[in-house]
Amino acid sequence: MNLPSPYALFVGDADPLTAKTAAGIAYWRPERCVAQISLPGCSVDLKMPTLSPAAAAAAGARLLIVGLADFGGAIAPRWVPTLLEALNAGLDLAAGLHHRLADMPELAAAAKRLGRNLFDVRQPRPEQTPFATGEKRSGKRCLSVGTDCAVGKMFASLALERELRRRGVAADFRATGQTGIFIAGSGVSVDAVISDFVAGAAEALSPANAPDHWDLVEGQGSLHHPAYAGVTLGLIHGSQPDALILCHAMGRDHIDGYPSYPTPTLERAIADNERAAQLTNHQARVVGVSVNTSKASEQDARDYLARIQDRLGLPCCDPVRTGVAPIAEQLLRTAATT
Amino acid sequence: MNLPSPYALFVGDADPLTAKTAAGIAYWRPERCVAQISLPGCSVDLKMPTLSPAAAAAAGARLLIVGLADFGGAIAPRWVPTLLEALNAGLDLAAGLHHRLADMPELAAAAKRLGRNLFDVRQPRPEQTPFATGEKRSGKRCLSVGTDCAVGKMFASLALERELRRRGVAADFRATGQTGIFIAGSGVSVDAVISDFVAGAAEALSPANAPDHWDLVEGQGSLHHPAYAGVTLGLIHGSQPDALILCHAMGRDHIDGYPSYPTPTLERAIADNERAAQLTNHQARVVGVSVNTSKASEQDARDYLARIQDRLGLPCCDPVRTGVAPIAEQLLRTAATT
Repeated sequence: MNLPSPYALFVGDADPLTAKTAAGIAYWRPERCVAQISLPGCSVDLKMPTLSPAAAAAAGARLLIVGLADFGGAIAPRWVPTLLEALNAGLDLAAGLHHRLADMPELAAAAKRLGRNLFDVRQPRPEQTPFATGEKRSGKRCLSVGTDCAVGKMFASLALERELRRRGVAADFRATGQTGIFIAGSGVSVDAVISDFVAGAAEALSPANAPDHWDLVEGQGSLHHPAYAGVTLGLIHGSQPDALILCHAMGRDHIDGYPSYPTPTLERAIADNERAAQLTNHQARVVGVSVNTSKASEQDARDYLARIQDRLGLPCCDPVRTGVAPIAEQLLRTAATT
Repeated sequence: MNLPSPYALFVGDADPLTAKTAAGIAYWRPERCVAQISLPGCSVDLKMPTLSPAAAAAAGARLLIVGLADFGGAIAPRWVPTLLEALNAGLDLAAGLHHRLADMPELAAAAKRLGRNLFDVRQPRPEQTPFATGEKRSGKRCLSVGTDCAVGKMFASLALERELRRRGVAADFRATGQTGIFIAGSGVSVDAVISDFVAGAAEALSPANAPDHWDLVEGQGSLHHPAYAGVTLGLIHGSQPDALILCHAMGRDHIDGYPSYPTPTLERAIADNERAAQLTNHQARVVGVSVNTSKASEQDARDYLARIQDRLGLPCCDPVRTGVAPIAEQLLRTAATT
């Protein structure tokens, strides 16, 4: 799936908490965004012009992305007039919700009539996905894994892409979730892939490349999550990662929404993820730990990161607070010796 | 998915190798089958009357099952006249192939006109599947796992169901693949489930039950398979097995179709499967090893089973050659002490 750009980010009447997708796109790819499009009551400020769909199109936008989530993953009826306006103004539409744009009769009819595209990035496309071959391919890959869902795996992979590029290393973020796909402009929503094809989808997402090129593959779920570990394992095997970054949220002591499931210790998570990854890449090693410390004070966060780093003997960073330079260094060092 | 019965087994012009689904149903559920339906050139003998669709219907059949596989998982055009005859005779149709009965315009139209059902058991039904809760439920579960695909997991689970029932233990086989679903008359084709829902589908398949009741859950894939391990892990987590049976094919030294992937040692397979299963059930233990020794002589097979049993300290059987009584005993013993 390849998305047209530049983007106009539709944030509806969202507050910052429900517009995380738009915020992620604006943070990581400001150069790809020309406008935000809001409804009355919106409290989201993405630091870009707030325009009508027609004005956004005039400013160069080619795609409106639904950048907020409503209850249950629906396309809310109150958004539809604006989405129709966008189609009429010449924009394609994209969303990554459970409900599909293509299943909204008004939108489907208007898109058809006007010759516009509707991109539902969460939808499976099994017919285009091959089974995994397990065969080694050229190029280097780094996959983010986690002690739980929602611990900053996408953020860590993007931060590492930025850090490697800054050092002149060829590197590409490979998206596996909705927000990541909007940021990258392409990708595969692996949690929507038919289970038999997950590893194959991960292979296709990070194909053979130049020997020194790094793919930074966005991880999903956690090997220690009672509902989603299978998705994680398929992604690990298909990515054949040379390097893993373990992601964690400071203070998260149980799997979110599953109070009887403690998060694994970092040591356990490292051992289990390396063991799983070594099935398809014997070299696979965790090269750093990325922690979301946003809920802690500066001092507590720094102490925590230092303590973990001592304990594990691996660079331990918060991508927002400290950057990931030490992890990039460790990754390049490890790759040079294998 | 609940299938009507009795069955008429359609074997087309198959030979025994391509009619494995029909053979499995006939072997495990002869009481559910009234006829085989063949085309000229068929060399399959399921030890039941060969009837026309109309005669099968007259003999009580309610469902024709496509019990053979053609190249690429298609519904072969040469089968269609017989399938139409069956619809006209009052039978529903079922298949577990990659291509769907419902996608064949002639069959779909006839079924609609006549009010018959088309059951495509391999098709995903995400909208009906919940996410996994990870919550402990009553009843006992035993899952078959393997060193590879196609090592006798379905067979081992069915043999154990039969052995437990013989001992008066309440037990039900739970099907996760096409042939298993036809044998059980219900089930979920987990390899066709959207990846996010695999563990949830496994929970739904083996729901809470009486404390002494055993579900024998049919395993899929292998934790050590580079393409399908994610399916296996989701099934392990959702099944929350108290007991695992490890299945292996004697002499299989690499993953079928993946020559650079050796099959794991039995010790490694036991350790990794127990470790994975203990996330959702701390009691999970491998209680026996089931080996397909069909390619070996009687003496070689018996020697092999004895050697493995000594080495692992676990009962080691070939369900066909020796039966699985020792595994059933070990399973009941283990359950009694936990």
